[in-house]
Parts: sequence; structure tokens; C-alpha cells
Amino acid sequence: MSRFTTFDTDDVRFPTSLSLDGSDAMNPDPDYSAAYVRIGTDAADGMSGHGFVFTIGRGNDVQVAAIDLLRHHVLGRDVEEVLGDLGGFWRELVHDSQLRWLGPEKGIMHMAIGAVVNAAWDLRAKREGKPLWQLLASLSPEEIVDLVDFRYLSDALTRDEALEILHQAVAGRAEREADLLRTGYPAYTTTPGWLGYDDDKLARLCREAVAEGFTQIKLKVGADRRDDVRRLAIAREVVGPDIAIAVDANQRWDVAEAVDWMSELAPYDVAWIEEPTSPDDILGHAAIARGVAPIPVATGEHVANRVIFKQMLQAEALQVLQLDATRVAGVNENIAILLLAAKFGVRVCPHAGGVGLCEVVQHLSMFDLVAVSGSTEGRVVEFVDHLHEHFVTPVVISDGHYVTPTAPGSGAEMLEAALETYRHGSRG
Amino acid sequence: MSRFTTFDTDDVRFPTSLSLDGSDAMNPDPDYSAAYVRIGTDAADGMSGHGFVFTIGRGNDVQVAAIDLLRHHVLGRDVEEVLGDLGGFWRELVHDSQLRWLGPEKGIMHMAIGAVVNAAWDLRAKREGKPLWQLLASLSPEEIVDLVDFRYLSDALTRDEALEILHQAVAGRAEREADLLRTGYPAYTTTPGWLGYDDDKLARLCREAVAEGFTQIKLKVGADRRDDVRRLAIAREVVGPDIAIAVDANQRWDVAEAVDWMSELAPYDVAWIEEPTSPDDILGHAAIARGVAPIPVATGEHVANRVIFKQMLQAEALQVLQLDATRVAGVNENIAILLLAAKFGVRVCPHAGGVGLCEVVQHLSMFDLVAVSGSTEGRVVEFVDHLHEHFVTPVVISDGHYVTPTAPGSGAEMLEAALETYRHGSRG
Repeated sequence: MSRFTTFDTDDVRFPTSLSLDGSDAMNPDPDYSAAYVRIGTDAADGMSGHGFVFTIGRGNDVQVAAIDLLRHHVLGRDVEEVLGDLGGFWRELVHDSQLRWLGPEKGIMHMAIGAVVNAAWDLRAKREGKPLWQLLASLSPEEIVDLVDFRYLSDALTRDEALEILHQAVAGRAEREADLLRTGYPAYTTTPGWLGYDDDKLARLCREAVAEGFTQIKLKVGADRRDDVRRLAIAREVVGPDIAIAVDANQRWDVAEAVDWMSELAPYDVAWIEEPTSPDDILGHAAIARGVAPIPVATGEHVANRVIFKQMLQAEALQVLQLDATRVAGVNENIAILLLAAKFGVRVCPHAGGVGLCEVVQHLSMFDLVAVSGSTEGRVVEFVDHLHEHFVTPVVISDGHYVTPTAPGSGAEMLEAALETYRHGSRG
Repeated sequence: MSRFTTFDTDDVRFPTSLSLDGSDAMNPDPDYSAAYVRIGTDAADGMSGHGFVFTIGRGNDVQVAAIDLLRHHVLGRDVEEVLGDLGGFWRELVHDSQLRWLGPEKGIMHMAIGAVVNAAWDLRAKREGKPLWQLLASLSPEEIVDLVDFRYLSDALTRDEALEILHQAVAGRAEREADLLRTGYPAYTTTPGWLGYDDDKLARLCREAVAEGFTQIKLKVGADRRDDVRRLAIAREVVGPDIAIAVDANQRWDVAEAVDWMSELAPYDVAWIEEPTSPDDILGHAAIARGVAPIPVATGEHVANRVIFKQMLQAEALQVLQLDATRVAGVNENIAILLLAAKFGVRVCPHAGGVGLCEVVQHLSMFDLVAVSGSTEGRVVEFVDHLHEHFVTPVVISDGHYVTPTAPGSGAEMLEAALETYRHGSRG
């Protein structure tokens, strides 16, 4: 028997605002950061589990402090017991009543739970010698639904319905896994599209994206309508008619404004409009979706939890679901969200970028392909070429696809040198 | 000209779990706490502004740390400029893009903004020598709408519509204010209804509530169906047919369960069912409202922001809107919520209790009466008789009414002795 003996956190910040990487209509100067946690045990294998919350700078210290509040749920606990019942562990953390008050199930406290839950999954995957996607895809349908808390979901998805979805996907798991290992998972790139880049850089990066094999790119919009039209025209001309171009307003608009603004961008053949308004506005997204149809509405990177996603699906508010690896309470809640998407027949195209989001979120889409939806139809995982060099197992992109990772773990582990160099305060 | 020169925070916790005060189906052992902030200036008046976030124990330190993140928005700033444009101050805090990522507009970070915004209002009211309700009710319709950020609201409430609501209430302000000063504002009491109390204590407290002049009480439900029926029967027998009894499930149910459970409580003439399910579940509340009609659905104490409230109103998900003094980003956002409620013709019955929530929230209902809805029809402010003795201007209840406060300020200021005694760690 082994016990959890260490629980270490770090406030890690990269000075990305200096280059305007990551600049958009709501976030002009992000410093990509990670509120990072490592959990260790007294087992002879010396393995540790790593997780983090992605933030964009100020407040990363408070996010770290929220993770530290969960220390007593981990230290001293029986490792096999915790890792053997991660559904129970999730419920214990989310339903800690005093901490729940601080959300409930949203914001800093909920994301903190996600980091610890993800660290536990990272450790379990390493102990089982599998990449996270493969570990999840090796679980039985019953084991998978045991990971999910169906509280607040049962009017849209019951445990039995989830089981049925998973059972239907059992046939073909092996073939899809073999395909996945051979071809990887489709990606799209946001690298060309940041608002802070000038037109020449935009055109150059669009050209490079096509040359690298991407079949979809994404541009940030929403700050200035004429700039958007100009930039979209440049991008369309560079990439030609066969490459999809999505646009992302980062929550800048109200409902009527979104519909109106999009009418000017529609002629450039827009693959989706992402985050047109507040991520809390289910009914607003639904109204926008009706107003901009047939352009699909995409959202999710700031959707606080499975309850909001449930309603987005019930209200037909989104046609592209963009789950995020660190916004909700970790792997378990994202499995609930994948099951909801499958129930409603909506495609999942995860948000990534930031720090380490690509490394982690790819596992969720790969699990979805093998064991849940069984499909990559219309599905792409975001890719942004930032900061991968700081991870132990950085993503590899080839011909517009994520190369399927085979190293054990979730991908969350940062290099010791990166933690030391970018620990907040350590650069003066 | 004066400047903000101090910004002090405190982690204040009361050991309420020892007596099971405040126990309900989701919160078995709360330790009522305040993440407290005081802002001071170099003005000769020596006045300071006080605000806080109410929490229930663990994590109050992280809530304090989030408030501390806002220090640079206050220190060194021109006091008259900030207090003269509290709409601008609110936007500045809420749209701080790096901090916004931590919500957005929800949870720990959003509540932290509320504490600082409320402290600014407390100071402004003190400087103008008025209780907060009277200060707000003395503003012109134009000044009031300038306090509100209509972003994400315009599909339900425009600035012009808000102005019209306020202009219509200008006539009669003086009479309503005089009435309010004479009779106070109707209250209801939750004191009898905590789940941790035994049947004898429940009956005794119900009797006392009626004797004290309350015309409505509230019971916690949702942990055990048979217990609920028994406790409701006891309460109904003690108070008789003329006293309203509301019930509060504190988010315990899913949609179908709520409708089913309430069918057993309905025979006891239930005034409203509060928090039947997740506070994020707009569509779920709407389904429950249809299922339990004509019993009204009440919610709001955990509703994260004005965008969720907007949708609750659009979807007819609630018939009683329970705003909270410290859950959203302070006075400004609560004014937006009052305006939304007025637009949709929904009554507002604020959540209170905890630590200091009664002291602060009464001002919002009184402002609403004088300058927004112009009515107390069907409206009551929650009252719980806990911890008032720690405040400089504690609420006074008389014959089931909040006695209208006349002391300058928002009511948020705690006694120095209370801060010292209950500062976390100071009791070993």
C-alpha cells in the first residue's frame, strides 16, 4: 500500500504579453500562466501526478492558493484507493460544502479541483504505463459512467443513456485505436490569427499554415469591424477556397450586434463563429445561432461546468462544443461533457493553446474517438504553437494532425527547468 | 483632493458549525465567515469604506487573497473621481482582462470585485451622510443607468428601457420614502427552519416567529422526504393557515426529483420552493416552475451574475428573484438585476442571513421600493437572527419588518472588536 506524501504547487508565468502572442478582442495582453500542482507518493516507482490551471497572468497566485485548499483531500490518502475510484474522488472534492460555496462549481475553486483531479489522472496513467487517452479508452462502459456525477444532468442524460452510448461504441474500439495511432487526430491552427499581428504577419502565417498541412485556421475578430473584414479577406485570398476559416470574437458582442457583425463576415465563408457573447448566455447563443445560420456557433472554453453545457445543447445554442482541459473540474467532468455532446449529436472541437492545453486536451478527443462518439467527422482540436518546449512530452503536429501520444501520462508535466525559470518572482 | 491610502483585508470566521446554525441539505456545517475589506483615504474626515464577501468557512483566505488582487485599482486613486464615477470603477474592475479570465464574471474573482465595489459605496454613502438606500434613491434616472453595464443585457433590457422604468418611478419617490421611514420593509424569517434543529426547537421557533410579527417563515428541505413532510406539518400546525411557509432545498434535486418531491409538500400550502436545483440551470428551473405551478420558484443567492438572472427571467424560470448582497459584483450589478426584475415584472425577495447580509441587502430592497419597482407587493427580505451584534449598525427588526436604517453607510462595517476576536487564527 502506498500513500500520497507530497502536494506541491507552483505559480508559473510566461511573459507572452511582450510579443502580443495570444492577443484578442477581450484579452489584449495575456501573460500565459499555469497554477501548477504535483502530487507524489511513497511508492517505490517514484512517480508523480501533474496538473494545472491555465490563466493569463494576474491572479495566478490566487488560483494556486485555491489548489492548496485541496491539500487535505490528498495528503495521507491511500493511493490505490483514490486512483481506483476517481469518480468518488471527484464527488468528494466538488461536494466539499464549504469550498462549494465559493463557486458553486465555477470559477477559481472549480478550476482548482480540475487541476487536482487531472493530477490524479496523470499519475494513474503513468502507473498503468499508458497515455491518458488510451487508459480512458480501455475502461469498460460501466467504469466510465462511474466517473461521472449525473447530478443536474438527468433531465438531459441519464446514467443508462450514457451506458448505451458507450456500449454502442465498444464495437470498433480496436480498429479506431489502430487508425488513431497511425494517422493522429485532425488539428486546426490559431497561430495566424491573433489581433496583435499586422497584415503581413497574418498573410505569412496563413501561408505557412496551409504549407504545414492544416485544413482549417482561425482568426480573432470583434475589436473593429473594418479591420475584421480586411483581415478575413487577406486570409481568404491567401488560403484559397478549400481551407476552412473560423472566427473568434472572444465574447465581445451582445446578441443583435453579433448577428449584425457576422452578416459582414459571412461572405468570406466562415467555418464557425466562436464565443460571440457571454459564455453564460445560453439563450443569447441560441438566438445568435438562429440569426447567423447556417454558420455554426462554437463556444466552451469559458463555459463553467457541465450544467451550462447541458443547457447549451438543450437550447441548440451551439453547433460546435469547445471543451477545455482546465476550465471545468478535470477529466471526469469533461467525460460528462463528451457524453452530453454524443447524446445530442454535436461535434466536439476542443479549445487549446495557452500553456499546455494542447498537451492535455488531445487525450480527451482521442478518447472520444475510440470510446464515445467513434468519429472525427467535422472534429478538429485547436493547435497554437506556443510554449510546447516547456513540457516533458510536448505535442507533435504532423501534416495538420496531432500525432497520437504514446508516452504514459496526461501530457501535463512541465520540465523542471521551465518551472524553475518561470516560477513567478524568480525572474525578478 | 484626497486619495485612497489604505486597503486592508481580514479573514474573519465565526464558529457557527458548533451550533448547527445555518445547516441545510447541502451545507451541513458552515462556519459563517467574511472576507473583509476596508479602504481608507487621506481626507480629513477619517472615514473608511467597508465591504465583504460572505463565505461559509474554508477558502475564506483565498477569497481574501482575491480581494487583495484589486489593491492596485484603489490605492493612490483620486477619491472624488472614483466615487463620482462608480459605474466606470465597476467596468474597470470587471473588465480587467487578466483577472476576468478567472471567472469570467463568476465565483471568487467576481465576488471579490463585489466587496471592493461595495466598500466604495459604503464610503460614498458615509461621505454624503446618507444610508446607502437613500443615497441610491436620491440619484437621477440618468445617474442610475450610468452605474449599470448593459453589456450582455441589451437583448432583454436596454439603457433606454431602464431609463423609462426609472422615470416612471420618479413620481411618488417622496411619499414612498416617507412611508418606508415610518413602517420599514417587510421581512420573513428563516430562523426556525434549519435542518439541524430538532422538532421541539422547530415548533418553539415557529411560535416565536409568529409572536414577533412575522407573516412568513422558511424551512430547509431536501435531505429526507419523510422528515420534510413531518417538519412542514409541525410548522403548519404551529403557525396556522395565515402565515406563509416557504421551503428551501439548497440545490439538492434534479428536475424530475424536484417536481416529484414538491408534490408531497404542496398540500401544506407552500409559499415558494427555493433553490430546487443547480443555480446555473436556467432551463431546469423553468421546467420545475412549470411542474410545480402554481407554487412559485425562487432562486438567486448562488446565481453568479446578471447574465444568468437575465435568462432566468427570459425563460420564466423564477417567480421570486433572490438577489444577494455579496454574490455578484456589488451594488452596481444588483441595480442591473433590480432593473431586469422590474422589466419582467418579477418580485425581488433578497437572500440574507449569514454574516452581515441582512445589514447590506436591506438597502437594495429599500432603494428598489423608492426608485425602481415602487412596490412591496409580495416582497419580503429574508431575516436570520445571527451575528448582528458584530456590526456597527446592526439591523433592527420590529413587528416583522426591517426598521429603515438612517445611519450613513451601507451597513457593512463590523465592530473593531469583532474583527479582532474572530480574525482567523486569532482564536488558536
